[in-house]
Amino acid sequence: MTLMVLGADGYLGWPLVMRFAMKYDEPVVGIDNFSRRRRVWEMGSDSITPVQDMAVRTSVFKQITGREIKFEHGDMRDYEFVENLIKKYKPRAVVHFAEIPSAPYSMIDAKHAIETHENNVNGTLNLLFALKKFAPDCHLIKLGTMGEYGTPGIDIPEGSFEIDYRGRKATLPFPRQAGSFYHQTKVHDSNNIMLACKIWGIASTDIMQGVVYGTRTEETTLDPRLVTRFDVDESFGTAVNRFCAQSIINMPVTPYGKGGQTRGYLNIMDTMRCITTLVDKPPQKGEYRVVNQLTEVFSVLQIAQKVKDVGDKLGLNVKIESLQNPRVEAEEHYYNVDYKKLKDLGFTPSKTMDESITYMLFDLLPHKQRIIEHKEQITPKITWKDGLVK
Amino acid sequence: MTLMVLGADGYLGWPLVMRFAMKYDEPVVGIDNFSRRRRVWEMGSDSITPVQDMAVRTSVFKQITGREIKFEHGDMRDYEFVENLIKKYKPRAVVHFAEIPSAPYSMIDAKHAIETHENNVNGTLNLLFALKKFAPDCHLIKLGTMGEYGTPGIDIPEGSFEIDYRGRKATLPFPRQAGSFYHQTKVHDSNNIMLACKIWGIASTDIMQGVVYGTRTEETTLDPRLVTRFDVDESFGTAVNRFCAQSIINMPVTPYGKGGQTRGYLNIMDTMRCITTLVDKPPQKGEYRVVNQLTEVFSVLQIAQKVKDVGDKLGLNVKIESLQNPRVEAEEHYYNVDYKKLKDLGFTPSKTMDESITYMLFDLLPHKQRIIEHKEQITPKITWKDGLVK
Repeated sequence: MTLMVLGADGYLGWPLVMRFAMKYDEPVVGIDNFSRRRRVWEMGSDSITPVQDMAVRTSVFKQITGREIKFEHGDMRDYEFVENLIKKYKPRAVVHFAEIPSAPYSMIDAKHAIETHENNVNGTLNLLFALKKFAPDCHLIKLGTMGEYGTPGIDIPEGSFEIDYRGRKATLPFPRQAGSFYHQTKVHDSNNIMLACKIWGIASTDIMQGVVYGTRTEETTLDPRLVTRFDVDESFGTAVNRFCAQSIINMPVTPYGKGGQTRGYLNIMDTMRCITTLVDKPPQKGEYRVVNQLTEVFSVLQIAQKVKDVGDKLGLNVKIESLQNPRVEAEEHYYNVDYKKLKDLGFTPSKTMDESITYMLFDLLPHKQRIIEHKEQITPKITWKDGLVK
Repeated sequence: MTLMVLGADGYLGWPLVMRFAMKYDEPVVGIDNFSRRRRVWEMGSDSITPVQDMAVRTSVFKQITGREIKFEHGDMRDYEFVENLIKKYKPRAVVHFAEIPSAPYSMIDAKHAIETHENNVNGTLNLLFALKKFAPDCHLIKLGTMGEYGTPGIDIPEGSFEIDYRGRKATLPFPRQAGSFYHQTKVHDSNNIMLACKIWGIASTDIMQGVVYGTRTEETTLDPRLVTRFDVDESFGTAVNRFCAQSIINMPVTPYGKGGQTRGYLNIMDTMRCITTLVDKPPQKGEYRVVNQLTEVFSVLQIAQKVKDVGDKLGLNVKIESLQNPRVEAEEHYYNVDYKKLKDLGFTPSKTMDESITYMLFDLLPHKQRIIEHKEQITPKITWKDGLVK
């Protein structure tokens, strides 16, 4: 049996293959086509942490820990590659992170919207067909996003809800209202996976993940060459990470609009713990299980304030400056989300955002010069209404 | 101002461009890449009615009626083509039929599932981006399917519903549970269009269409060379049309499984009337309007019985023979669907299935030999569980 991570060169993928290699005695295989690196370069940016190439990463990791990570280079859009991969390793669990994760990137123009669709939706379809054929009992752990739900104005359950409608009861998928073409690709994936579970008996956990932040996991800190990437550009950087980077270089922290946008968040270390919990507690054959993966809920303005509080104590003198919102989204809304299933499976959160921000600033300080070099890319130039504004 | 029909060479597209040319004084433009013809040939079949090529169709139509249909050859997956098209004609309404409409075709293998996704989802994305740029006030009339809803076990409203959940009320999209990768592409389209309406102010009507049957419209009967295509193969033929063709050649009519699958249906003539109703009553700017387009609801077994009743009266001695269901679907289920919005807009149904079957058999009789030649393709060889079984 094998554990497989698709997208093993990414922000979450690299720490996860290391975590798997440490925790499990089964072979661990990582797959990537290095397109995240290419796309961040396309945006004129780069990882703020100086990441090594995959050959260095895996050999340093083996040197230090004695544990092995196999790596296969390939593209999930290529069905022959995917089929051969699943046929060769017959994994007991596949964690599918191999998707383009950026909302702004998908809103640049038709080409980028379609690229995001082809990479994400077609890749997942290829995987589903290959699993059906060569690993029908494999547990597919798929990374979706809390953004699939949008902000519906009522409580958000975990995937489905029981409703009473005109005198009849039914348990139905909770309606999705994603706010960008990227988020829509995750909805499309969820729908396709739900179908595959039903007709082919595939067992899948679809993770509605909150925004992940953080600079380190147990394994990335073993050696500087094992660090994971950290993006701060408008497309591939997420709110908390961007705010910390801005504070380091005395750039104002920039929430969009009123900053009342409320979302779920979790530390990258807790993400690792969630995934291993899911690996250890797979769903039944044919079950399509949805979990909401987050540990805390904040508005963007609350996060900006947290970064300011910690930064000011460290003498960074952080300013908060609202930017005109490049997105079309509610800036104030009701938000109340269930996140109980992972806890019921045994997951316990280990980090709060308050305690994380201190060490994030600490970890980023040595890379201050790299942040300065990519400062221009932090400020948004892609708008939901007009795409990339040159 | 122009009226545009994407997929103008298809079963519904060809009659629609003729209808538009007769009814409206604006220019009418049809677009197609002729891929429906190619895909039916790929399945080893052909249109039972001998359809002419587009040059003959449009010139015969002009000769007889004096009305003009412009035609542009191109592929909706090609953004440059789509952008130039919208820029050139700046349509006031676009009817988007340019999608692969087959559930079995999408279930053959990964390649066909992805081909269906790329044609349908990418084509619609290209159209949305081009409309935003060059015809932001155009009314997009998009062909979806009743199959997007699946069989949820409760009443099916038109697109969205008001619910009360844990003490809060919201109007939300009705959950979609499509039963094939083809049907999923229509769900993906719906989600993408809903987003485009919200962020770009596009006005769209998304048609949840029932199964269309019939051999003729007002214009197809003007000349034999104006006939529309009629497919009977397992992939591109629909239930009523297949059953009528089977009766003609004394092949048993073949419902799948128990035959309790209940769906909405409408005659092709009524489809034309629905679309012109929508053209005449567009939604507001930014409105995403969903209509359920059907006139009657039947189980597959009821339809088989109707075809038998009419066929027997004509001396065809029709047998009904259940086949093992190649699909994964509920064969008995609750089904109660709203279809009020089109009537409120002024549409009145003109044909029942009972009265249609007689003339369908009458229209198909001259093509008996062509049905015999493609008889093998009527029987299903594609299963939901195993794809194309050779």
